[in-house]
Amino acid sequence: MPHWKFKLHEVIYEADTPAGKIFDIALLFVIIISVALVMMESVTSLLLKYSWEFYIAEWVITAIFSIEYILRIIAINKPKRYIFSFYGMVDLLSTLPSYIGFIFGGANLLFAIRALRLLRVFRVLKVTRYIGESRKLIDALKNSRAKILVFLFAVFIICIIAGTLMHLVEGKGGGFDNIPLSIYWCIVTLTTVGFGDIAPVTPLGRLIASLIMITGYGIIAVPTGIVSAEYSKATDKPIKNTQVCPNCNEGRHLDDAEFCHNCGFKLNG
Amino acid sequence: MPHWKFKLHEVIYEADTPAGKIFDIALLFVIIISVALVMMESVTSLLLKYSWEFYIAEWVITAIFSIEYILRIIAINKPKRYIFSFYGMVDLLSTLPSYIGFIFGGANLLFAIRALRLLRVFRVLKVTRYIGESRKLIDALKNSRAKILVFLFAVFIICIIAGTLMHLVEGKGGGFDNIPLSIYWCIVTLTTVGFGDIAPVTPLGRLIASLIMITGYGIIAVPTGIVSAEYSKATDKPIKNTQVCPNCNEGRHLDDAEFCHNCGFKLNG
Amino acid sequence: MPHWKFKLHEVIYEADTPAGKIFDIALLFVIIISVALVMMESVTSLLLKYSWEFYIAEWVITAIFSIEYILRIIAINKPKRYIFSFYGMVDLLSTLPSYIGFIFGGANLLFAIRALRLLRVFRVLKVTRYIGESRKLIDALKNSRAKILVFLFAVFIICIIAGTLMHLVEGKGGGFDNIPLSIYWCIVTLTTVGFGDIAPVTPLGRLIASLIMITGYGIIAVPTGIVSAEYSKATDKPIKNTQVCPNCNEGRHLDDAEFCHNCGFKLNG
Amino acid sequence: MPHWKFKLHEVIYEADTPAGKIFDIALLFVIIISVALVMMESVTSLLLKYSWEFYIAEWVITAIFSIEYILRIIAINKPKRYIFSFYGMVDLLSTLPSYIGFIFGGANLLFAIRALRLLRVFRVLKVTRYIGESRKLIDALKNSRAKILVFLFAVFIICIIAGTLMHLVEGKGGGFDNIPLSIYWCIVTLTTVGFGDIAPVTPLGRLIASLIMITGYGIIAVPTGIVSAEYSKATDKPIKNTQVCPNCNEGRHLDDAEFCHNCGFKLNG
Repeated sequence: MPHWKFKLHEVIYEADTPAGKIFDIALLFVIIISVALVMMESVTSLLLKYSWEFYIAEWVITAIFSIEYILRIIAINKPKRYIFSFYGMVDLLSTLPSYIGFIFGGANLLFAIRALRLLRVFRVLKVTRYIGESRKLIDALKNSRAKILVFLFAVFIICIIAGTLMHLVEGKGGGFDNIPLSIYWCIVTLTTVGFGDIAPVTPLGRLIASLIMITGYGIIAVPTGIVSAEYSKATDKPIKNTQVCPNCNEGRHLDDAEFCHNCGFKLNG
Repeated sequence: MPHWKFKLHEVIYEADTPAGKIFDIALLFVIIISVALVMMESVTSLLLKYSWEFYIAEWVITAIFSIEYILRIIAINKPKRYIFSFYGMVDLLSTLPSYIGFIFGGANLLFAIRALRLLRVFRVLKVTRYIGESRKLIDALKNSRAKILVFLFAVFIICIIAGTLMHLVEGKGGGFDNIPLSIYWCIVTLTTVGFGDIAPVTPLGRLIASLIMITGYGIIAVPTGIVSAEYSKATDKPIKNTQVCPNCNEGRHLDDAEFCHNCGFKLNG
Repeated sequence: MPHWKFKLHEVIYEADTPAGKIFDIALLFVIIISVALVMMESVTSLLLKYSWEFYIAEWVITAIFSIEYILRIIAINKPKRYIFSFYGMVDLLSTLPSYIGFIFGGANLLFAIRALRLLRVFRVLKVTRYIGESRKLIDALKNSRAKILVFLFAVFIICIIAGTLMHLVEGKGGGFDNIPLSIYWCIVTLTTVGFGDIAPVTPLGRLIASLIMITGYGIIAVPTGIVSAEYSKATDKPIKNTQVCPNCNEGRHLDDAEFCHNCGFKLNG
Repeated sequence: MPHWKFKLHEVIYEADTPAGKIFDIALLFVIIISVALVMMESVTSLLLKYSWEFYIAEWVITAIFSIEYILRIIAINKPKRYIFSFYGMVDLLSTLPSYIGFIFGGANLLFAIRALRLLRVFRVLKVTRYIGESRKLIDALKNSRAKILVFLFAVFIICIIAGTLMHLVEGKGGGFDNIPLSIYWCIVTLTTVGFGDIAPVTPLGRLIASLIMITGYGIIAVPTGIVSAEYSKATDKPIKNTQVCPNCNEGRHLDDAEFCHNCGFKLNG
């Protein structure tokens, strides 16, 4: 593996050197601008007024993302590992729609696909690794996941039963016209969101609604209790570097790792 | 007890053997379809369009549930234990309405009864026993139950007093026309649901509403604190099997139990 | 102190003997009926239809409460201690309005005063002392009180500042017409109630509203954290009796107390 | 430093002596009145009726705040330390608008600036230092800050992605007309506020909305878990005095401090 490739990999994939940090922050900046552009393009009045500026900006960003995509493929030993990874797919879908839109037209559907570019925002979260705190938070959440899913599943069954009940009580014609709609209303109510576009009008319906609300208010304690307990248990992990193996794209290495624990490749050139 | 009966019991009531698991998952699948059908039948446009398909599907599901019900009675030594248990009643009510509807007509009321079939969904939760996590969660909830009920009772008294106050302040004619309605509004507000179909309009009413909201926002901490504390105390229970006594239908046995702790019947044939 | 007086005191004020329990539950029953009557009288259609029945029921309940009030005064050595206590005042106000209403008329204002009868419901909570759990809960809440008040005070200041800001941004004419109204809206929003009767319409107003909501969503953690911590610290108190001193009306005694810790009176006759 | 200056400093800046406490409470009283006046002036009907009284009250309060401002400058050795501190700026901005408004007119914009006077309310929180509890609370919040910000950042990204999705699903023309509006709706929904001024109407939109609500209901556990854990860790700090260095305005000193830890100035005259 030539030295320039090693350096390039370090700058693009990692964030431990000054150059790597600058690259990451610059990329972050471009991603945020591209997301802001997609948002602004959705506002009709802005689109009509600045259509030409949007057109230019779209091309500049597509060019930057294309160059970045090519560099990422060049900088790695096994490009397939990157191309078929989750971020590899997202990166490709961030540039492709613009090109297709140019050749074939059909901006409307492509706008939808281009919105996928938003997923790149998650790269931003990589930066949060600098904030050592977030590791512990993510670990606590990972440990709580199974339990919270069981809880949300139970909540969903409560909503199905309560929704059917409300449909039978409030009857057809109002906001509880069919069971799926009633279940939707139950979720809105149990989670204490309460839009108010649908609301019970019969005394019995209001009584059941009260019970649903009090249930929702009482059981919100469950996920909270789970996360609290898991969070107290979680310990701070020592990994603070952002090293990525230039050979196989593996991302988690100990601070003093010399070789990749996945493919045995020497990490520091 | 003949061997085939033992095997049948193992498949239908338990989920520790491959056949038992397949039976459970298949049944789960049918229950979910039957629930989905009840939901879709409630949508008028779908009912008019696919009434014939609904009719057929209803009969197929009724047939499956009927066969299952008979098998459950056959597979157990003391059938009364099953028939008069909670799930036994639910299982019967899952099939009966369809038969009655055929002989006597009167679909409207029977639709309401058939909705009871939804309770079978709770059988699904039996599957969550595989996820060892849920036991601890349920234990923490059971231990918190008495305290959370005391809390919800106090919340209810606050709602009665605040509701009466709001009725006196806002007066007749608006959304606070009578005390039960005002109490309903208080529950909606204190639980932070806030539909907005009823909202105070007088300055004093809004002041009291503010106090109710801040109270609701502040005391949601109470159930959360209870569950957190109970959850930290709870320990993981060792029971992970789904054995059920073929004689008396008792459901909770230790992993290495040889005899039923309830009736002394030998568990493993 | 004669023996009959001692017995009467035991029955009326305490709940450790069978007779005392029966008295308490019977009284509870009458209070709940009287509260239900006040609620139902507020529904105009019911009042017009059953005005005669309400009239009779009102007199029966007034009579029962009057007898109870007189008995409570007789059964205690220092009646002033009872008469001028909080519950003494509430008990008096539970009967007086009915008498005044009969002599002078003017039902409307008296209805408001009679609603005070609702405060008697709190006597019901005395019953929760049987559920040993509630003691610990109340202790945790008492310890958290000062901190939660500081928190709610900070929340209120945030609402004042954010409310003024929203008034300046959204301007006059809409739902943010003046600062008190804007503060009301802020409380509705920060506590995540969200009625929707007032909602921002300008882009900047919606941006500030988003910040207020995210703040409210984030800081609800604070009271919860406080109560959780206090609840884990709280220990179960041993007091489970409901003894009250027949001389000075003091209510909290240790289970094996022989003399009142307040006035030295012998507790067990 | 002359003795009268020392005494003046003690009264104005600290709250450990009786005179200091009286000054603080009196000032608090004036601040609350001035805030109440700004609120009431914003109510058009009150402004028209009592314009003359508001005018007088405004001048009295401006005079009091001006005198206080001058005293604060006199009582300190290095006035710049006070003038350019945060509270120094706020104090100046509490009086200046009234003077400018008199000389140049233009009440409307100045009303906005005068609202800054509200920030003085935070001085009130200094009083909460008497309640020893609040220190621990603030420490727990400070320790949780970084983690809660990471959490709120993740919430914001979820809102961007879900908002874009809702815009694509619900389409133009309704309440999800453009992406920023959809993101606003997502924040309203995820934080369980739920105004209801915008609500999904398509079945798919309602399905996604349900998922957003359940997510919001489930992840509110995260900040709560963080604060709970941090709060249990936090220890009570010993500082309970309100001493401020008369030379350099440094505000946090140990209870038995003799010299300022910042400039070495003797604290007790």
